[in-house]
Amino acid sequence: LNSHKQSYSNRGMSLEEDINVTNQYYLTHDICVIHKKPTPVQIVKVDYPKRSAAVIKEAYFKQASTTDYNGLYKGHYLDFEAKETRNKTSFPLHNFHEHQIEHMKAIVKHNGIAFVIVRFKTLGKTFLLEATKLFPLWDRQYDDAGRKSIPYHYFLDNGFEIPINYPAIVDYIKIIDQLFF
Amino acid sequence: LNSHKQSYSNRGMSLEEDINVTNQYYLTHDICVIHKKPTPVQIVKVDYPKRSAAVIKEAYFKQASTTDYNGLYKGHYLDFEAKETRNKTSFPLHNFHEHQIEHMKAIVKHNGIAFVIVRFKTLGKTFLLEATKLFPLWDRQYDDAGRKSIPYHYFLDNGFEIPINYPAIVDYIKIIDQLFF
Ligand SMILES: [Mg+2]
Ligand SMILES: [Mg+2]
Repeated sequence: LNSHKQSYSNRGMSLEEDINVTNQYYLTHDICVIHKKPTPVQIVKVDYPKRSAAVIKEAYFKQASTTDYNGLYKGHYLDFEAKETRNKTSFPLHNFHEHQIEHMKAIVKHNGIAFVIVRFKTLGKTFLLEATKLFPLWDRQYDDAGRKSIPYHYFLDNGFEIPINYPAIVDYIKIIDQLFF
Repeated sequence: LNSHKQSYSNRGMSLEEDINVTNQYYLTHDICVIHKKPTPVQIVKVDYPKRSAAVIKEAYFKQASTTDYNGLYKGHYLDFEAKETRNKTSFPLHNFHEHQIEHMKAIVKHNGIAFVIVRFKTLGKTFLLEATKLFPLWDRQYDDAGRKSIPYHYFLDNGFEIPINYPAIVDYIKIIDQLFF
């Protein structure tokens, strides 16, 4: 993990990479079982060379129909999306897709735990915001006076800053513990 | 759904396609939220042509680190793998991978619901077998006298045949209901 620490202190790590390291730590230490879903790809053409692995020669990125992460913690279903922004004062809602919001609404309806992890890169702050706190802002953006972004202070007032702890880099399960257990 | 019925009666549908149709039905009818994970792909080369979508020009299939399906039902975490065989008397264990079994063991340990769906294509029978009933056979295969396959009668005795009901094609949630709720 030392090499990771180094690259992290060099600001080379993305939020997604941090969360993947965190999930690996959680898994190894039997804390929870959370995995990132693979990037969905539409495969069009595959070559099968003799005596070597199949090569995908033509494929396209597909829109994901769900969030990026899900899994299991203390018998509960967890589901979340992670996003980062360089903005300092707000988080633009267009970073989420309609079907991701619909998916999180279905999760909440079926008694799962849904949330987003949002990093303000420039500020060096990472927040957990419950999906139920996101839905009203999402829905309201289509109103005449609706904002197209979430103000930074909304995260301060309604979200929870995630401690950046080693060796779990984005220690979101601490917040989930406070909120639900 | 009519076109599906037709192709199903033509035996053109794989177990995976049937389960995907089933999950779509479950989702639309607010029964549960289960998705298939995308096939994991290692992307090596991407072209970005002007004025059109990015094209993946070189990529390779990666081994999945988990099972194919997971999601949420009545507040509970569900996780399963689906496999089919043309064999008539037994199901070869090499159809599963070690890391899939490890993953299902982690799910059971963290109080999730893990199982496999196995179809004997030639017999036209599809079974749900709880992961806890699979583990002992998996572990025992490495013993001197250990079998490398699961006898068909083991599914009859320890599994549950899944009713093939329209419009949910592989109506596995009925079995989950009987077992856990
Ligand atoms: Mg994403
Ligand atoms: Mg599979």
